[in-house]
Amino acid sequence: MKILVLHGPNLNMLGIREQGIYGTESLDEINEAIAQQAEQLGCTVETFQSNHEGELIDAIHRAKGQAAAIIINPGALTHYSIALRDAIAAVDLPVIEVHLSNIYRREEFRHRSVIAPVCRGQICGLGSMGYLLALQGLAALLQEEESCHV
Amino acid sequence: MKILVLHGPNLNMLGIREQGIYGTESLDEINEAIAQQAEQLGCTVETFQSNHEGELIDAIHRAKGQAAAIIINPGALTHYSIALRDAIAAVDLPVIEVHLSNIYRREEFRHRSVIAPVCRGQICGLGSMGYLLALQGLAALLQEEESCHV
Amino acid sequence: MKILVLHGPNLNMLGIREQGIYGTESLDEINEAIAQQAEQLGCTVETFQSNHEGELIDAIHRAKGQAAAIIINPGALTHYSIALRDAIAAVDLPVIEVHLSNIYRREEFRHRSVIAPVCRGQICGLGSMGYLLALQGLAALLQEEESCHV
Amino acid sequence: MKILVLHGPNLNMLGIREQGIYGTESLDEINEAIAQQAEQLGCTVETFQSNHEGELIDAIHRAKGQAAAIIINPGALTHYSIALRDAIAAVDLPVIEVHLSNIYRREEFRHRSVIAPVCRGQICGLGSMGYLLALQGLAALLQEEESCHV
Amino acid sequence: MKILVLHGPNLNMLGIREQGIYGTESLDEINEAIAQQAEQLGCTVETFQSNHEGELIDAIHRAKGQAAAIIINPGALTHYSIALRDAIAAVDLPVIEVHLSNIYRREEFRHRSVIAPVCRGQICGLGSMGYLLALQGLAALLQEEESCHV
Amino acid sequence: MKILVLHGPNLNMLGIREQGIYGTESLDEINEAIAQQAEQLGCTVETFQSNHEGELIDAIHRAKGQAAAIIINPGALTHYSIALRDAIAAVDLPVIEVHLSNIYRREEFRHRSVIAPVCRGQICGLGSMGYLLALQGLAALLQEEESCHV
Amino acid sequence: MKILVLHGPNLNMLGIREQGIYGTESLDEINEAIAQQAEQLGCTVETFQSNHEGELIDAIHRAKGQAAAIIINPGALTHYSIALRDAIAAVDLPVIEVHLSNIYRREEFRHRSVIAPVCRGQICGLGSMGYLLALQGLAALLQEEESCHV
Amino acid sequence: MKILVLHGPNLNMLGIREQGIYGTESLDEINEAIAQQAEQLGCTVETFQSNHEGELIDAIHRAKGQAAAIIINPGALTHYSIALRDAIAAVDLPVIEVHLSNIYRREEFRHRSVIAPVCRGQICGLGSMGYLLALQGLAALLQEEESCHV
Amino acid sequence: MKILVLHGPNLNMLGIREQGIYGTESLDEINEAIAQQAEQLGCTVETFQSNHEGELIDAIHRAKGQAAAIIINPGALTHYSIALRDAIAAVDLPVIEVHLSNIYRREEFRHRSVIAPVCRGQICGLGSMGYLLALQGLAALLQEEESCHV
Amino acid sequence: MKILVLHGPNLNMLGIREQGIYGTESLDEINEAIAQQAEQLGCTVETFQSNHEGELIDAIHRAKGQAAAIIINPGALTHYSIALRDAIAAVDLPVIEVHLSNIYRREEFRHRSVIAPVCRGQICGLGSMGYLLALQGLAALLQEEESCHV
Amino acid sequence: MKILVLHGPNLNMLGIREQGIYGTESLDEINEAIAQQAEQLGCTVETFQSNHEGELIDAIHRAKGQAAAIIINPGALTHYSIALRDAIAAVDLPVIEVHLSNIYRREEFRHRSVIAPVCRGQICGLGSMGYLLALQGLAALLQEEESCHV
Amino acid sequence: MKILVLHGPNLNMLGIREQGIYGTESLDEINEAIAQQAEQLGCTVETFQSNHEGELIDAIHRAKGQAAAIIINPGALTHYSIALRDAIAAVDLPVIEVHLSNIYRREEFRHRSVIAPVCRGQICGLGSMGYLLALQGLAALLQEEESCHV
Repeated sequence: MKILVLHGPNLNMLGIREQGIYGTESLDEINEAIAQQAEQLGCTVETFQSNHEGELIDAIHRAKGQAAAIIINPGALTHYSIALRDAIAAVDLPVIEVHLSNIYRREEFRHRSVIAPVCRGQICGLGSMGYLLALQGLAALLQEEESCHV
Repeated sequence: MKILVLHGPNLNMLGIREQGIYGTESLDEINEAIAQQAEQLGCTVETFQSNHEGELIDAIHRAKGQAAAIIINPGALTHYSIALRDAIAAVDLPVIEVHLSNIYRREEFRHRSVIAPVCRGQICGLGSMGYLLALQGLAALLQEEESCHV
Repeated sequence: MKILVLHGPNLNMLGIREQGIYGTESLDEINEAIAQQAEQLGCTVETFQSNHEGELIDAIHRAKGQAAAIIINPGALTHYSIALRDAIAAVDLPVIEVHLSNIYRREEFRHRSVIAPVCRGQICGLGSMGYLLALQGLAALLQEEESCHV
Repeated sequence: MKILVLHGPNLNMLGIREQGIYGTESLDEINEAIAQQAEQLGCTVETFQSNHEGELIDAIHRAKGQAAAIIINPGALTHYSIALRDAIAAVDLPVIEVHLSNIYRREEFRHRSVIAPVCRGQICGLGSMGYLLALQGLAALLQEEESCHV
Repeated sequence: MKILVLHGPNLNMLGIREQGIYGTESLDEINEAIAQQAEQLGCTVETFQSNHEGELIDAIHRAKGQAAAIIINPGALTHYSIALRDAIAAVDLPVIEVHLSNIYRREEFRHRSVIAPVCRGQICGLGSMGYLLALQGLAALLQEEESCHV
Repeated sequence: MKILVLHGPNLNMLGIREQGIYGTESLDEINEAIAQQAEQLGCTVETFQSNHEGELIDAIHRAKGQAAAIIINPGALTHYSIALRDAIAAVDLPVIEVHLSNIYRREEFRHRSVIAPVCRGQICGLGSMGYLLALQGLAALLQEEESCHV
Repeated sequence: MKILVLHGPNLNMLGIREQGIYGTESLDEINEAIAQQAEQLGCTVETFQSNHEGELIDAIHRAKGQAAAIIINPGALTHYSIALRDAIAAVDLPVIEVHLSNIYRREEFRHRSVIAPVCRGQICGLGSMGYLLALQGLAALLQEEESCHV
Repeated sequence: MKILVLHGPNLNMLGIREQGIYGTESLDEINEAIAQQAEQLGCTVETFQSNHEGELIDAIHRAKGQAAAIIINPGALTHYSIALRDAIAAVDLPVIEVHLSNIYRREEFRHRSVIAPVCRGQICGLGSMGYLLALQGLAALLQEEESCHV
Repeated sequence: MKILVLHGPNLNMLGIREQGIYGTESLDEINEAIAQQAEQLGCTVETFQSNHEGELIDAIHRAKGQAAAIIINPGALTHYSIALRDAIAAVDLPVIEVHLSNIYRREEFRHRSVIAPVCRGQICGLGSMGYLLALQGLAALLQEEESCHV
Repeated sequence: MKILVLHGPNLNMLGIREQGIYGTESLDEINEAIAQQAEQLGCTVETFQSNHEGELIDAIHRAKGQAAAIIINPGALTHYSIALRDAIAAVDLPVIEVHLSNIYRREEFRHRSVIAPVCRGQICGLGSMGYLLALQGLAALLQEEESCHV
Repeated sequence: MKILVLHGPNLNMLGIREQGIYGTESLDEINEAIAQQAEQLGCTVETFQSNHEGELIDAIHRAKGQAAAIIINPGALTHYSIALRDAIAAVDLPVIEVHLSNIYRREEFRHRSVIAPVCRGQICGLGSMGYLLALQGLAALLQEEESCHV
Repeated sequence: MKILVLHGPNLNMLGIREQGIYGTESLDEINEAIAQQAEQLGCTVETFQSNHEGELIDAIHRAKGQAAAIIINPGALTHYSIALRDAIAAVDLPVIEVHLSNIYRREEFRHRSVIAPVCRGQICGLGSMGYLLALQGLAALLQEEESCHV
């Protein structure tokens, strides 16, 4: 079972960018932790970051038929990219939306996610641990339907 | 006389994606029908799909001097891409906006097109036939000014 | 196969009224062109204009059982006549909404159609050609289900 | 004691139109039930349906001096006809507004009644029984002031 | 020089309806005063009242070529009848909008006139004298261009 | 057949509180009239008043399996208690919302009921008679499905 | 009988400023016409212009006891000066608000007058004639109550 | 280390209420799963459900000094109980907000959480697994600062 | 003369909770200062705190006939409890609303008090001194009408 | 210790203007009462009224270094004078905003104070007593920091 | 070539007022720098500060015929003084709006400038350097049309 | 000292596109002028244009450590690209936002810049001179901290 983990715009700057909000971990460190968690759960993960809306849409399209589920932190695209939303709706896979920070205690315009209504669920405000919990959540969800190790 | 036909994000998923809304025809089949209709009208068409806002803008810019008119289905970019809008305004060609579904009976946020005010007209809700009617409309419009076959 | 073509308030003033927006063709000339197009498609049309909301509703009700489809340009009623909307919903026929001008590049209050969500589709901004394209569209739609000449 | 019962636009389509929302009873059947109920209460009723806002206003004006009270289901005019509202205010009779469906669980635009602030009360969501209850309510209201059978 | 004076819905109830707001004069008395004022100014007037939006539109259309100007008190249609607005725009005559009451000290929804942007000017809150002042205003306006008695 | 009648906050003050709006009847007198009406209809009623949102929710929950229907006047909770709304949705019984005053002619914030969309219908503005009409309405509704006296 | 005529900010620039909107007459010419009209009506007028909100308020206060009525063109203060509004309410004299241009066909923010709800009436869009009509209106209003020449 | 788990209004109806949205598990079963998960993590949990806003606030206050963290599913109070929000802010403990359903794909009014800005994070849409992930998240958070078993 | 002093949700946490906003005084210390002030003014006070909306409403109802006036700090209920507002309106006693902090320099949602329109006045931003000033204000108000010591 | 007391536009009309709202006391009487209260508290006051926003700003600027605190009733400037707000922020003195009437039970536009967020606190609805309470409040506030009589 | 430099309300407090936002330079120092810059550019400047809207309007009117251009920092009047806006429009000179701080990263109400639409351009957030850049900009603009030293 | 100058979507069309709004200069000519100005100031510039949001974000990221400051004209992305905003916030360099036209006198949707709150300042409406002024501004800003030529 493969799970695609997508990181949106500016997440490549993690550990560098606004540490007060996003912490000191780099994206590589986070991806490493995700890979370890996946291994424990008997899954494989593919991680991908892009600052280009179009590349993230392409990646979501490619996931259809290849991955069993998607974890996505859309970065700022969360708040306006209806194209990303439609891409998620188009592939019809279980998707969990993750945000490092609690977007609901930040600027007003960050309180609305145009992605959320087409996702299974959302985890936010728990830092990089959010990805790991999302991975566990998806593993459990998928296991209910089909055994993970078959 | 060449007409550029642009398909925006996620339209490559046609026939695969949400069939209840968008039908079962694939984008290739639609492009095929467009080409046949163009031939009947004595025009040529170039079709292009991209999930990247920037590539669509580049294509619109290139159309200036090469195409006589544009048909565009901007997909979800319809609702927020002011950059796409400005590209259309910049090239100053007759443009018809086409939507497969009736965007006015879907979610509230799909009721607003930021593209519409810089287009000549809009056809929506008539499935892939919308492209064919747009083609006829443009052919007639252009014929009024200059003969199509010269 | 009969198609009812309805023209709403002030469309009787076409050719006289605000030519910069609506052109110089009179309503009679448009109705003539519609009739010719219908003949080519093997259909019959009935055209009707009224400045009275109630008469348009009555005409829509009468269409049930007599016409196979409706083309309607509701004029200014587009923006507030929920009664007209409910009449369309009540007869359950395929309806295409047509506007001569591109309502989305005019005053803000003309951007919202209360009629649109109960129509099959919308064609706007293409002048009187919009009616002809709507006619073709309906003919094709109806032909898919039942043969037009039987 | 005479009570005027007014039915607004599209209510002549009852039993035919959108049965999922409005049920299968025809307007004649409803008027019949209203008449029976009135007889039991020792009142007379006059029922009138129109798709024309102006005719409903005329009817309300005529009621002054002829009827003791009005029951009105304004159909879609509920949501925008300030002229109807002013007509009700002008005649200064007790008026009960009735809706077959529960307008508050339908589209957002149906939640606002411009008529309600000038009516005595409102009954909605109880189907055709709403008229019968309104009749009982008015009969009781009027009896408090003057005896019904004098 | 003929001036058309139009009275909208419920103005036939003047003197009967809500006297606290609209005074005790009847519409006939007002029309009488208008006729006298017109005579003094060397003009003729035609007055017309209707509770039907469509009839008012028809009357405005007929004015084209027959009347030199229009005075209109659109009653409650002031606040929503875009069809009436379009009729005024269509005939391209000088129009003054009159309201008996000061609509700006009444309910919020009466503060907006959809008619106002296509009229020459507006007089409100001065009771039936508003019509007489409008008549003087129009007479002066028209005299500037062409002599009234020719 | 038992029907639960719930009175929300401040309804215990009836007859004492703002008599201009709510009349002079006390809650005991209203409950008495309800009981009499129920007896005539062959039903039993249980009436309950509380100023505590939580107690009203508890009462609604307890109704499941015990009562056949609910009549509720939620008082001011009408306008904000989504918890009350969810309680009604949770028990899945026919519910009629009753208001003594016509909430649509009072302050703006009283025009919106968060309860209404999960109720069968609403009766307002008819004073304590509203409860009696609601009782009749429910009795008739329930009788259609199952006989009341079995 | 004295009537105070107040001109707000920028009206001293009339004839110089934006002639397309405000015409070519100077404020002195307008004041001259007002004085002539007043003489014909047997009244006296005092005219005052200021670009200072405070001076206009002071002038309104002074009018109490000295003038029988006020005509005010508050210029741009129309749209935000609640202090001016309160000054008008404080002196309790009949006041007519005049605007040279039709403020309802200009920018959205000019459609709202915070002054209007405390004035007797409003005349707008009729150029400097608006002042003359206001003067006639006030003279007639005041004459009804007390004779003008006493 | 003790963690308080709070369930708001109507969550006692789980397994009974609207199964399409909330699933078939009862609250007891969920609490059982929470207890097991806690045991695995070496923590203790106290679970509490109430339909009374005041009791939830009291429970949060009591947690100060007794519990190391709180998991709260505020039910419908999520959307309006600023008092609950202030209680969370007052005790200054790490709090995770959990929702069984994805509140962002439901009614518009459920998209806003007044609680979220004072919580550490939010998990929604993952059913009862949300509580278990929240428990893991809190355990990890608390462990970073102080060892759990001391 | 007895004055009832009500403290709403979370005010029991004073001195503990968010000291930056609410200061270090405990509620007991504030109540002590209120009692001393009352003694100086020759009045008695009863103080009551609750986190339950319903209990506050009950307390307000009981005040009728027992207390001469009420001072209330409704805490967060200020912003949404229309039920509390209606309770205050129902008892028809002079009420002063007190807030420790200046609610107008805090979050947007704290700027609106649904309680304020039914209170005599409001004192905010002056810490616990606000209660003492309110007490003086009420004592003076009541003394004007009837002597305090009779 | 000197305290500056500022009265904004139209407050010079007190006792004359709208007595139903503002009472019968004149501004001189209020200033007299303020002076007496100040004497009792061992403070001096300077009172100043102006209908000119600019003069009020000048007065606030002059207060810096001369007065220890400010009491201001900004009259209608409360609702729009951001310049006044900035003046208060600029001088950095404790300021209490006073309103004679309860601005929250008047017109909607009077509910927002642009001044409030830069003041220490607000007292409203208590008539001229509000000034006296504000004086006591400021005296106590200033005494906490430095002795008043030094 | 003379350029008028206007400073609005509270700018006389620069260097004293809120240094975190506006810096430590006094207005005299800024005016000095402006004069030096002007001298370098071969222009003359007149600087003027006022806390009175009316005086700023008067100054703008006087500029007509005397100055070639205006630089204005309207202070808080930026956000509501439509009278100032109209004064700028009336004199028809090139005007550059300057703000010391970046008004777009401050309070929401500071994001809207009612002045901006009638100015040539805007410079904000660059401290007192903004004036110098505006001066250079205007000098270059004016030089294009006519030589500065003639 | 290097300064990065970024041009967003459609700016490659300068000189071709909508000359009434944007002038006749081409982007190459503007870049040339920028380079000359930089040379005069002793700085180097790198200019980059893209129609792709992602490429602009990449360029901003690369600037960190390479450039001392950024000048950005984000084109239409100004109004919705929160991703661009976050990129600017992430690199923590002084940034000046430049617009050729005065965006505040164009369509309403162009009045809001989502970029502005994370920039040092904004210059708009001054054509290509805006870039040159921005360059001077940045050079002066940077010189204050460290000498430019070291």
